[in-house]
Amino acid sequence: MSNRISNLFQIKYPIIQGGMIWCSGWELASAVSNAGGLGLIGAGSMYPDVLKEHIQKTKKVTNKPFGVNIPLIYPAVEELIKIIVEEKVPIVFSSAGNPKTWTKILQNEGIKVAHVVSNAKFATKSEEAGVDAIVAEGFEAGGHNGREETTTLTLIPLVRSKTTAPLIAAGGIATGKAMLAAMVLGADGVQMGSRFVASTESSAHQNFKNEVIKSGEGATRLALKKLIPVRLLHNNFAQQVEKAELEGKSVDFLKDLLGKARSKQGMFDGDIVEGELEIGQVAAIINKEQSVQNIINDIILEYKVAKNQMGHVKFAL
Amino acid sequence: MSNRISNLFQIKYPIIQGGMIWCSGWELASAVSNAGGLGLIGAGSMYPDVLKEHIQKTKKVTNKPFGVNIPLIYPAVEELIKIIVEEKVPIVFSSAGNPKTWTKILQNEGIKVAHVVSNAKFATKSEEAGVDAIVAEGFEAGGHNGREETTTLTLIPLVRSKTTAPLIAAGGIATGKAMLAAMVLGADGVQMGSRFVASTESSAHQNFKNEVIKSGEGATRLALKKLIPVRLLHNNFAQQVEKAELEGKSVDFLKDLLGKARSKQGMFDGDIVEGELEIGQVAAIINKEQSVQNIINDIILEYKVAKNQMGHVKFAL
Repeated sequence: MSNRISNLFQIKYPIIQGGMIWCSGWELASAVSNAGGLGLIGAGSMYPDVLKEHIQKTKKVTNKPFGVNIPLIYPAVEELIKIIVEEKVPIVFSSAGNPKTWTKILQNEGIKVAHVVSNAKFATKSEEAGVDAIVAEGFEAGGHNGREETTTLTLIPLVRSKTTAPLIAAGGIATGKAMLAAMVLGADGVQMGSRFVASTESSAHQNFKNEVIKSGEGATRLALKKLIPVRLLHNNFAQQVEKAELEGKSVDFLKDLLGKARSKQGMFDGDIVEGELEIGQVAAIINKEQSVQNIINDIILEYKVAKNQMGHVKFAL
Repeated sequence: MSNRISNLFQIKYPIIQGGMIWCSGWELASAVSNAGGLGLIGAGSMYPDVLKEHIQKTKKVTNKPFGVNIPLIYPAVEELIKIIVEEKVPIVFSSAGNPKTWTKILQNEGIKVAHVVSNAKFATKSEEAGVDAIVAEGFEAGGHNGREETTTLTLIPLVRSKTTAPLIAAGGIATGKAMLAAMVLGADGVQMGSRFVASTESSAHQNFKNEVIKSGEGATRLALKKLIPVRLLHNNFAQQVEKAELEGKSVDFLKDLLGKARSKQGMFDGDIVEGELEIGQVAAIINKEQSVQNIINDIILEYKVAKNQMGHVKFAL
């Protein structure tokens, strides 16, 4: 097995589970790692003590590599990193911040570091910071998102043309065919979020999972562009945000509308009307809850079939 | 040669040149058809007499199939269609309207009809209308665009899952790798616009071509969402639109700001400051002007190499 991503992280399949807030606890991360992918604990929604507990629980149920995702804008980022080092977590995915601040410090502790970007400019900065891998995430992804609105299909070739580090594609990928398409475009692996939100092992509230499964085409929209852009499932809260944005409301108005803990309210506590529900456009093709093992099996089977079919396409160029 | 799109249109390669306003006259359309793709005359920016002239000139310089793109919101659509029938144009691509209105009328004249959509709902309606092919165009595409903002990576599998007609992917495709990725996702062919804007044979003003070639990542944005969303290259006009939208300005204000003939001013007359410059996100990877023949050669070579590499990917799942 000689793929750069599977080798780097010592995993069977180059499939990373996105470290999403409120959805990616020890159960999801360990299930993905046990199924041959790379599971990530989403530290962005955890107090340091909670993260520590999730890391320890993950280590109890898997001996496979796993990681932690840290948004670098997290107020207590130093505390999180102290715990990650103490607990000897082998892999960190950092996002939403400067890759130069922490990469070397983590690598000096023997930790592999990937950094999440939404444009080639920050991919280049990540490479200069010496990251082990780059995650390039397109406009269609759920949750926080880049201001340029570059889609995965455009972004991956752009990043590939400017950098040489192992590259993980994210945004719009929930199937084996999309994984293969990402590899064709120059990625070495994929990060998937939305499909794992709807997994049995995700800590998303059942109400939220059901909304993801039910949702169809056009059910998400990039919102709160005057704050940090975030892709949300349409509900009453998202509708209010959209109205406010069309009316040109101010940053302060939007901050007040968002308030505190909307994402917990929606994704973890299950208030699907007034909560913030972060999910990607691919929610439209996710139509059932599955175990992580079945998700990985499906993706790998579809990938293999698609790859084999392309070897025999009728249009033989 | 048994690909559904190449068979349908009797062309060598399943590459369609988008029928873009102000850029796609007889020189571009005939060059693409002569190079083995399908050239389309963009009727959206032509008076009926002008269209007639372009059709007649195209027929003089190619004996290969070609087509005309008609936005069905065009005020004098009946006149355009009368000319198309009289001139025995073999193929029509319709967009921006109801596919039920004209499809059967055109097909009864022996004309093949493809309809452009931005969501699976209208893809299904197009299939019900009996179209010969569906063009599904994602958020990253230049020019007019769907309200759901669904990206090509998400859209193609969605449309493929709901329809069976031959499917052409559009938006974000300017290279052989992107073409292969689109085929992996379920498309039978691709439509490319931006790369042909920057071709020698395009009727885009040289100033506009130069801007496309110069532009990098994040240089376009979807604008005028309160009117019909359109992807524009950033310039002073686009900046004024963005400002107005952030301030929540009304539909009437935006209509006044747009005024008349902005697209001609920008794309055809070469006012790159105050004109409307419609182009896709892939402009970021287009960095030179090329002849149509060289563009087609490049794409086919890259497609072949990528397809061959896929059969030998190091990560052998």
